[in-house]
Amino acid sequence: MTTPAEYYETHRELLDKAIEAAATREYWSAYPESPSKSVYGEDAAPAGERAFQALLGTDFPIEVPGATGTAATERSPYGIALGIRYPKGDPAALVAAARAAMPAWRAVGPQGRAGVAAEILRRINGRIFELAHAVQHTTGQAFVMAFQAGGAHAQDRGLEAVAVALAESTRIPATAVWGKPQRGTDPLRLAKTSTVVGRGVALVIGCNTFPTWNGYPGLFASLVTGNAVIVKPHPGAVLPLAITVQIAREVLAEAGQDANLVTLAVEEPGEGIAATLATHRDVRIVDFTGSSEFGNWLEANARQAVVYTEKSGLNTVIVDSTDDYKGLLRNLAFSLSLYSGQMCTTPQNLLVPSGGIETDAGHRSVEEFGADLATALDKLLGDPKRAAGTLGAIVNDGVLARLTEAGGAPGVIHASATVTDEGFPSATIRTPVVLRVDAADEKTYTREWFGPISFVIATGSTRHSLELFTETVRDHGALSASVYSTSPEVLEAAREAALEAGVHLSQNLTGGVFVNQTAAFSDLHGTPANPAATASLSDSHFVTGRFFTLQSRHHVAEQADA
Amino acid sequence: MTTPAEYYETHRELLDKAIEAAATREYWSAYPESPSKSVYGEDAAPAGERAFQALLGTDFPIEVPGATGTAATERSPYGIALGIRYPKGDPAALVAAARAAMPAWRAVGPQGRAGVAAEILRRINGRIFELAHAVQHTTGQAFVMAFQAGGAHAQDRGLEAVAVALAESTRIPATAVWGKPQRGTDPLRLAKTSTVVGRGVALVIGCNTFPTWNGYPGLFASLVTGNAVIVKPHPGAVLPLAITVQIAREVLAEAGQDANLVTLAVEEPGEGIAATLATHRDVRIVDFTGSSEFGNWLEANARQAVVYTEKSGLNTVIVDSTDDYKGLLRNLAFSLSLYSGQMCTTPQNLLVPSGGIETDAGHRSVEEFGADLATALDKLLGDPKRAAGTLGAIVNDGVLARLTEAGGAPGVIHASATVTDEGFPSATIRTPVVLRVDAADEKTYTREWFGPISFVIATGSTRHSLELFTETVRDHGALSASVYSTSPEVLEAAREAALEAGVHLSQNLTGGVFVNQTAAFSDLHGTPANPAATASLSDSHFVTGRFFTLQSRHHVAEQADA
Repeated sequence: MTTPAEYYETHRELLDKAIEAAATREYWSAYPESPSKSVYGEDAAPAGERAFQALLGTDFPIEVPGATGTAATERSPYGIALGIRYPKGDPAALVAAARAAMPAWRAVGPQGRAGVAAEILRRINGRIFELAHAVQHTTGQAFVMAFQAGGAHAQDRGLEAVAVALAESTRIPATAVWGKPQRGTDPLRLAKTSTVVGRGVALVIGCNTFPTWNGYPGLFASLVTGNAVIVKPHPGAVLPLAITVQIAREVLAEAGQDANLVTLAVEEPGEGIAATLATHRDVRIVDFTGSSEFGNWLEANARQAVVYTEKSGLNTVIVDSTDDYKGLLRNLAFSLSLYSGQMCTTPQNLLVPSGGIETDAGHRSVEEFGADLATALDKLLGDPKRAAGTLGAIVNDGVLARLTEAGGAPGVIHASATVTDEGFPSATIRTPVVLRVDAADEKTYTREWFGPISFVIATGSTRHSLELFTETVRDHGALSASVYSTSPEVLEAAREAALEAGVHLSQNLTGGVFVNQTAAFSDLHGTPANPAATASLSDSHFVTGRFFTLQSRHHVAEQADA
Repeated sequence: MTTPAEYYETHRELLDKAIEAAATREYWSAYPESPSKSVYGEDAAPAGERAFQALLGTDFPIEVPGATGTAATERSPYGIALGIRYPKGDPAALVAAARAAMPAWRAVGPQGRAGVAAEILRRINGRIFELAHAVQHTTGQAFVMAFQAGGAHAQDRGLEAVAVALAESTRIPATAVWGKPQRGTDPLRLAKTSTVVGRGVALVIGCNTFPTWNGYPGLFASLVTGNAVIVKPHPGAVLPLAITVQIAREVLAEAGQDANLVTLAVEEPGEGIAATLATHRDVRIVDFTGSSEFGNWLEANARQAVVYTEKSGLNTVIVDSTDDYKGLLRNLAFSLSLYSGQMCTTPQNLLVPSGGIETDAGHRSVEEFGADLATALDKLLGDPKRAAGTLGAIVNDGVLARLTEAGGAPGVIHASATVTDEGFPSATIRTPVVLRVDAADEKTYTREWFGPISFVIATGSTRHSLELFTETVRDHGALSASVYSTSPEVLEAAREAALEAGVHLSQNLTGGVFVNQTAAFSDLHGTPANPAATASLSDSHFVTGRFFTLQSRHHVAEQADA
């Protein structure tokens, strides 16, 4: 057994660095994003793949309180057979087990809990190749992206949440002596103790596309602030979170804690276990990533809980002018193509003045811009191998159906095509569709088309673009926004519009940073400032609702040395 | 004109000290609580009284957007005529004016806003005597208490909120440069800007008993985090907040800001302006102190807003044993008598084992304990002048009605008596009533009896007391709790019970600190851990929901010196 305090000492330097990085917002990462042998060692990649393969078609080894039968609900977008069976969760038993585990966890205190969390992340990182395969074959992310976004970056986001949770839950010191001077007599002296108490049982509802990246912040923020966490994966992406829960339970048990501080809640699709758990009177925290429909339902109905949602919206690009037209097209084409546009941050609405834009390659009409973007997409995706590595696979039939619907609509300027992956001949891989619509056609573009579907929207002017941007984001939300302009006035107006709309803004991205991507410890992801989310990953607000600080005080005599 | 930045420089040292004090939780206070001439100067007291007297029977000088007529709704519990007329507020005009004021306030930034807030507090402190009279004659607090709790301590609580808001809204630096190393090429470099954006229009709904102490934290927390604030006083206690709003508007205008960042919303009783404002789509923050009934209504109905409530509950004292029986009785008698028990923290339920308690004065049966407490009350309140100074006056007819109801119930062990204040012969002053009831009579003591009404509840044992404590507080809430015991085991069990119940705990208070009182910068007041509140004054959680941090980023070239 290693005590939580010992884990804290082991990981103290890492935790201190993480807290410092979250405070400076400069570049920092704890987990290498390169899957190279020089980083992770000669055997890591094949061992990880073997571990993944060994799980296929088996009963996943994990204990679940009150389990009733098993469910095997996953299907690889790459077409391989998974057939992994998980014990099915029983809501009442899960909540009861979680509650029972909490008092001893409370007594551990913030530092010990952060130490245990850091150890869980260390072991998750130790299984990063296995997890990358798990992410690839549940989400459809290409392997390298699954390794990075689903592995190292998710772990960074998890550690960031640990750091912010530790920092915020220790702002009020555990002990203090208060001495109030009194006229003509000794000071009044009180010894005061402050204890961090978790809000209650926490529920993490995972999504199909980024089970770890979007799941880890809530999981670790709740755990470190003293709560037990029930992890309810999307039926299509269970394995990455099942492995995570397995590791967490292993570390918790070794730390002398009840393993039921982290449990897995698996269901058959449609059983509605998420809704049942989220509205249970003892579930006091809900983290959700997914559709606006269910997210809004949770916000309206899980009234006994604090609800952190990341839903969907109308990610927007305002194109005004550029001095690097090639860079703009290359950057935008990549943003639209990466993971087949199945990121909650992929641009959907590209606002371009109908009069065209000024570029270093001369004036480009809106038609020419559309054609140039289509060409950039073809160039990026011309080589099938590179295309497959960028696009990944289509995660589910819903995305495919929307792609078909969009492809049949008028105004297509880049049609979606099928791509074949040599390694996975049954993979479902498609290039993006881009349509041209008019600003008046708002019925089309104010609907969210999750997947590789975007619109070049001809507006009256850049000023009109900015108005449309503010209005549509304010009403429908957005998780990302960007602007291209060479005009300081337009950039300033875009920054103001983004503040009014309530969305983070990227400006003139033409190089190796993409609007879809945010970096842990520096970029906030999402914001409750618009309807697409009720939280930012990870700021103080994301953690302060997860715990209470309770005080106790009593008189003490004058200190001998005072 | 003095710019917000200049106000920040003026008050920077004070703000730094306040932030440090809130972090260490040691004793600190910014505003002297003594009304003595040596502190506030020879003329301060008479000048303050003259200023108060000059307001009586007049139109209070304040601009209110869209005002429609006036209202004069206050009545002094000390029996003097007030007759101050305030412009009546119009919800739509108030919200529109508040919204219009916000963009320029956002541009000021957190430091400038904190500087302006500190200047407002400086001028509030400069009118502390006038405010003390205003608090006395609206709440019924005796003058010295009105000066301290309604003056200096309220200002400390306000500054504490400023400090916590400034600290939390600047955790993410306004600018940062992020440089991610790239293999074989220059790092990716982004300049990042983070802007604090207020959540929206804020509403502060004041209470009748502590308009400033309970009103200032929400007012200043919202203001410093970039919001405009509409202050809606209780119809019975308008003046203290009207003076506050007047001062805030004066400072804001002098700082070149729109005075409508802080406005006054006055109504005739029963017009329901609080509900109308609280559910307005553009009101995004609500702070409320008052009854559980309206507080719960706000939580359920003001769904577009984040709602911070401080309601009411069953404040409990667990009496097990003591080595200072006299001190216990003296302390408890004072807690029950201070401001006629009209504090949200006044003990109501005193849990005593039916087998009696061990004390340094020997074993005392529950009957003897009740009699001793009655004697202690009589001793404390025997001298009418001292009694009036401790009791203050009864704030309204609701309290009087409950007092009559309790006095007519069986089991009275200390009857309420009338006290006459020489200075205010028409004042309504009453001593506390104490009743003895059995633990089985929970219908009586699980109801909240706001006012000078307490119950000695005979329980089966201290263990039973602790169980009752946990159950009743968990179900009905509490704003304070205390325990008396000489047993380390009982104290430990009481601390655990308080953590389970979710309430702050005082232990063995026998001296000059009382369970009703909390000190800014050290004691949290209230907690969302039980149903009596959804916030603590003032921790990170109290401020982080009031703003968003929005980021903007763009590429930058390698720094010349890098």
